[in-house]
Amino acid sequence: MAEEVKVFGLWGSPFSRRVDIALKLKGIDSEYHEEDLSNKSSLLIKYNPIHKKVPVLVHHDKPLAESQVILEYIDETWENYPILPKDPYERAKARFGARFIDDKCFPAIWKAYWSKDEREKAVEELIELLKFLENELNDNFFGGETVGLVDIVGSLIAHWLPALQEVAGVEILTEEKFPKLCRWTHEFVNHSVVKEVLPSREKLIALFRALLESTSS
Amino acid sequence: MAEEVKVFGLWGSPFSRRVDIALKLKGIDSEYHEEDLSNKSSLLIKYNPIHKKVPVLVHHDKPLAESQVILEYIDETWENYPILPKDPYERAKARFGARFIDDKCFPAIWKAYWSKDEREKAVEELIELLKFLENELNDNFFGGETVGLVDIVGSLIAHWLPALQEVAGVEILTEEKFPKLCRWTHEFVNHSVVKEVLPSREKLIALFRALLESTSS
Repeated sequence: MAEEVKVFGLWGSPFSRRVDIALKLKGIDSEYHEEDLSNKSSLLIKYNPIHKKVPVLVHHDKPLAESQVILEYIDETWENYPILPKDPYERAKARFGARFIDDKCFPAIWKAYWSKDEREKAVEELIELLKFLENELNDNFFGGETVGLVDIVGSLIAHWLPALQEVAGVEILTEEKFPKLCRWTHEFVNHSVVKEVLPSREKLIALFRALLESTSS
Repeated sequence: MAEEVKVFGLWGSPFSRRVDIALKLKGIDSEYHEEDLSNKSSLLIKYNPIHKKVPVLVHHDKPLAESQVILEYIDETWENYPILPKDPYERAKARFGARFIDDKCFPAIWKAYWSKDEREKAVEELIELLKFLENELNDNFFGGETVGLVDIVGSLIAHWLPALQEVAGVEILTEEKFPKLCRWTHEFVNHSVVKEVLPSREKLIALFRALLESTSS
């Protein structure tokens, strides 16, 4: 493989799948290593000694961790199909949106669906956060006419959140409240490249059912 | 002012000061607005409705929040005195380091000095985190021969941490344990541009004393 790109990931992790979406959009082949979190590979620990987490990208033997750092690296290394906009202000807004999803939405989703004590408050908070995203969406994608950084990071909301909703029976992202986000969700998960990378909804639902059973027992 | 750059900040916030350091390194004049966190200005809330936090940079009436997003914007907008390296892998490593300081070191410092229950564990964790930074430092600065992204974000460790240590009487960053980090701390806070921007150690110590008294009463 000329490019020597390896990815260490987990099929059910939204953070892992981001890297695969970006590589696929750029048309870069990679060698994929599925990790077992209960028995992490020595390579994962070697390549990401700090966080010991997926995803890790290894390019020409040089490892990188942290999904958003990897996405920017991919965009700077392979210039076809830009993931970030060209204009500095638009780039900054995309970075702000991507951080907003990880720093604000992800913890709120986690608490809204998995916590015992803070669920109600987290649901309210998540609704407020999704309103911000709803207002930011002016095209097919957050990236405009093409899938960009915020869309890729947002697969958490487009694909993982609806599966969680179905398993838990708590609907937050609905057509009535968030028509633009729901349309985007549909566009994104059916995008010709994205849909090849995302795990099937059925597999995710089975994963969440198993997780929910193991945490509620 | 030709560039119309405004900064909304707090003198004692390491996040705010980052923006001022970057602008000063680039030689960009700005109009500074000191915020009062107990009575936030309507402009701050208008410009950063999501987080309602400092720092906010406003360039030609377009606002940006989140200090690391602002630093990248500054580096892309004014190209003299680069803050990030040119090489994509080195850029990614700098971004990883900057995120590491905010996502891992900042919460550990907070807990090590302000929490009641988790202090001991946080001190141990912080020592491990600082070891990583100690090993990453191979030149005068994390940015090599010049101050770069990790140094600017790291002012939290170079300037705020030593003042906190003095007030709390808990020494973590010591010459014996971290000789390279301590040398860097000295180089950084005495850098001709940086020292003009950082608040004096005496002012920080007085701030921490007041904070410590108000939280322990």
